[in-house]
Amino acid sequence: MEFTIRKAEVDDMPQVHELVKELAVFENEPYAVKVTVEELVADGFGETPCFICFVAEYKDTIVGMALLYPRYSTWDGRTVHLEDLIVTRPMRGKGIGDALFKKVVEYGHQQGVRRIEWEVLDWNEGAIRFYERQGARILRDWDVAKMGEKAISDYLKNKN
Amino acid sequence: MEFTIRKAEVDDMPQVHELVKELAVFENEPYAVKVTVEELVADGFGETPCFICFVAEYKDTIVGMALLYPRYSTWDGRTVHLEDLIVTRPMRGKGIGDALFKKVVEYGHQQGVRRIEWEVLDWNEGAIRFYERQGARILRDWDVAKMGEKAISDYLKNKN
Repeated sequence: MEFTIRKAEVDDMPQVHELVKELAVFENEPYAVKVTVEELVADGFGETPCFICFVAEYKDTIVGMALLYPRYSTWDGRTVHLEDLIVTRPMRGKGIGDALFKKVVEYGHQQGVRRIEWEVLDWNEGAIRFYERQGARILRDWDVAKMGEKAISDYLKNKN
Repeated sequence: MEFTIRKAEVDDMPQVHELVKELAVFENEPYAVKVTVEELVADGFGETPCFICFVAEYKDTIVGMALLYPRYSTWDGRTVHLEDLIVTRPMRGKGIGDALFKKVVEYGHQQGVRRIEWEVLDWNEGAIRFYERQGARILRDWDVAKMGEKAISDYLKNKN
C-alpha cells in the first residue's frame, strides 16, 4: 500500500469535505454538516487559521484525513485537540488510520503539549479499541455538552 | 448580592488558579492541576492568548470564573469552547453561575458562532440540570478521549 501523509492544501478541501460528510453519515447525523468547502478554505488557510489538517493520499485521491487545532486545559495548559480522524470506508484496515494518528501524536509532541484529546462516540467500539491500542484513555464519565444556534438565540431572548 | 462580572486581568490569575484547584478537588482529581499561575498569565495574556476569562467579583474577591477559547467543528465551523465555569462553594446558589454563563453565551453570540460547547461529568447532576435549564443538550453518547504526556512519549518510543 503506497499512500503518503502530508499537510493538506487548499485544493484538498473538497475531498476533505466529502470525508467529513461520510463520517457524519456513519455517526447517524447525515444532515449535521453545515460547513461548506468555502468555509473550510477560509477557516483553515486564512491569516489566522482555525485548524491544521493532514491528509492521506493514495493514487492522487484523498482517502483519509486528520484535522486538529490548539485547545487549552486549566489542568495541563496548551493541548492539541483532534477534531476528526477519518479514513474512507473502502480503505480501512490498511494502516492509514495508524499513519494519520502517528502524525497527530508527532505534531502534539513537537508542540510540546502535555495532552492530546478528542471525542469518541461510546458505541463506536472499533474506534475505541483503536484508540486504546495507541495508549489513549477513554473517559466514559465525561460527556459533551452543546448549545447550537437556536439554543443560543432562544437563551438570549429569554434572558434579555 | 452585589457582584460584578468582568474580563479577567493578570492580577486575577492567582485567585483563578485557586478556583481551578477547588474544581479539581470536587471532580476527584486533586492532583491534576499541573498548570501554574505563571503559565496562566503567560498563556492568557501574551501576544497570542490561548483563552479569555471572565471573573465574578464580590467585595474585592474573585468568587467565580468562566474560561473559554475558540474551537473548530467540521460540522458547525468556528465554535466557542467553555473550559471551566466555577463558582466557589460558599457563593453558590446566588445567581453568580447564571451571570457567568450568560456572559459566555453573549460572547459566543458576538463571535457569531453556530455552537458553544463544553464537557461535563456524567455524575455531576447539579451541573447537568443547570446546563439543561439554559437550553443546552448533554450528549451522553459522546465520551472524552485523552493521551497524556507519558502516553505520548510511550507511543512515540514504540512507533519509532
